[in-house]
Amino acid sequence: MIVIESVAGMQAQSRNWQQSGESIALVATMGNLHQGHISLVDIAKNKADRVVVSIFVNPTQFAEGEDLDTYPKTWDADKTACELAGVDCIFFPGESEMYYKNKSIGVSEESLSQSLCGASRPGHFSGVVTVVAKLFNICLPDYAVFGRKDFQQLSIIKRLVRDLNFPIEILEGDIIREADGLAMSSRNQYLSADERLAALLINQSLHAAELLYESGEKQCSALIRRFLETAEQVGLRIDYAEIRSVEHLELLEMVFEQSVFAVAVYVGDTRLIDNVVLKSTEI
Amino acid sequence: MIVIESVAGMQAQSRNWQQSGESIALVATMGNLHQGHISLVDIAKNKADRVVVSIFVNPTQFAEGEDLDTYPKTWDADKTACELAGVDCIFFPGESEMYYKNKSIGVSEESLSQSLCGASRPGHFSGVVTVVAKLFNICLPDYAVFGRKDFQQLSIIKRLVRDLNFPIEILEGDIIREADGLAMSSRNQYLSADERLAALLINQSLHAAELLYESGEKQCSALIRRFLETAEQVGLRIDYAEIRSVEHLELLEMVFEQSVFAVAVYVGDTRLIDNVVLKSTEI
Repeated sequence: MIVIESVAGMQAQSRNWQQSGESIALVATMGNLHQGHISLVDIAKNKADRVVVSIFVNPTQFAEGEDLDTYPKTWDADKTACELAGVDCIFFPGESEMYYKNKSIGVSEESLSQSLCGASRPGHFSGVVTVVAKLFNICLPDYAVFGRKDFQQLSIIKRLVRDLNFPIEILEGDIIREADGLAMSSRNQYLSADERLAALLINQSLHAAELLYESGEKQCSALIRRFLETAEQVGLRIDYAEIRSVEHLELLEMVFEQSVFAVAVYVGDTRLIDNVVLKSTEI
Repeated sequence: MIVIESVAGMQAQSRNWQQSGESIALVATMGNLHQGHISLVDIAKNKADRVVVSIFVNPTQFAEGEDLDTYPKTWDADKTACELAGVDCIFFPGESEMYYKNKSIGVSEESLSQSLCGASRPGHFSGVVTVVAKLFNICLPDYAVFGRKDFQQLSIIKRLVRDLNFPIEILEGDIIREADGLAMSSRNQYLSADERLAALLINQSLHAAELLYESGEKQCSALIRRFLETAEQVGLRIDYAEIRSVEHLELLEMVFEQSVFAVAVYVGDTRLIDNVVLKSTEI
């Protein structure tokens, strides 16, 4: 496994692979790798000849007051995890390698990014799509793998690829959960023992709503009420709990098409997200 | 020479060339090709194995009330000109091939695009950088050639490549002029015989300012006054006449570094641009 810190070095490596006819898959991360990330690496390995993991805590996607400074950095463990997972190359740039001080070009998304996390985190998705566009141009992948846990991010990145014509296929990874159901996240480690227990209610409440849906309830307000009545029991502070169409993230009143029930919840000071896809089934 | 109308077809053709180790140069145009464009093709041919000319009148870079509907379309002549110039491929997409109705991703530039043409043409450079980013991802060139006549556009596209890390080298072409000095432009054909004569004063007045500079005058206000006193004689309406630094397009008071004297002028209803680079010479 090689580690490359420079943009020019990464582009040269990817060009080399391209010219020997090898396909490349990218897993873009902010490091602090857990089983969720590794599941994306596995998808990448199944599809491409070469797997690149980028590790870059991108400052431009953190809003003022968010956890940029405390975001966990675990380089040695990340490197070992990548080696064990069979990654070919880690792209590990410093901030000054990624951004000029007088940078003035930005990519933005003006539709899918307006709701859900985009509404609570101003500038977040502009930061995300800009850095992902850069990573695409630096790593030159044929495939890029993103997890469904960041459902809105995944939708927006698919839109980025479509609207700017990146010659890249986006692959999707399922949400990976701890044994007790909590969706894996680097931010889980911010939780105290009590908060960790309370956080379990996020997935459990989503699951309660899913069961209600499967029993025949199609009214979004009823499904959301079911989520809230269990989640709010333990004092979780709800940022949003919404049911939206899968492709265009349109707010729904009734679940008649494939939909995503997406939530963001504060557990203490920690903001966690989770979601469940409500499959469109005939009753 | 082949003509490709679809995004997928163009990407497949460029991938083929890449995989046989052939380099690609792109000349992005809005068609109505003249000797200025052909000079860019010549630069492309000198540098790369394959030359792609894109022809697309990009609606998103025209502001309300501009000449989108009347912009000259001369496909047969353009095709012949490309064939004669030794172009390998014309990429000639329709509007619906380039833009989805619900497109929501845009690229923008927030510094270099604020002055000069960007100030007079709201949204113009967002349209330009977005379509150029798309053309880069579709044609996958190693080189892209742009003319210095659109000096601000050239600066902004270099910034696009730098800030989004496109693996592309930008090559620059000199301004190509008619025998009498008027900078070549598709918009010159809008001019009546009288206007065509008046338009000559644009280059002549710029040249007068350049001579004054070469005689030792470094004060921008004096150089601009020289331009205006000849240009305004024939009733040209000046949109802007400014001297700016070459790289960052900063407004200058004195010419102590390499600078560009850039002008935009209305001749009747037709807006024309021209510029001259003032080389930094020791006196």
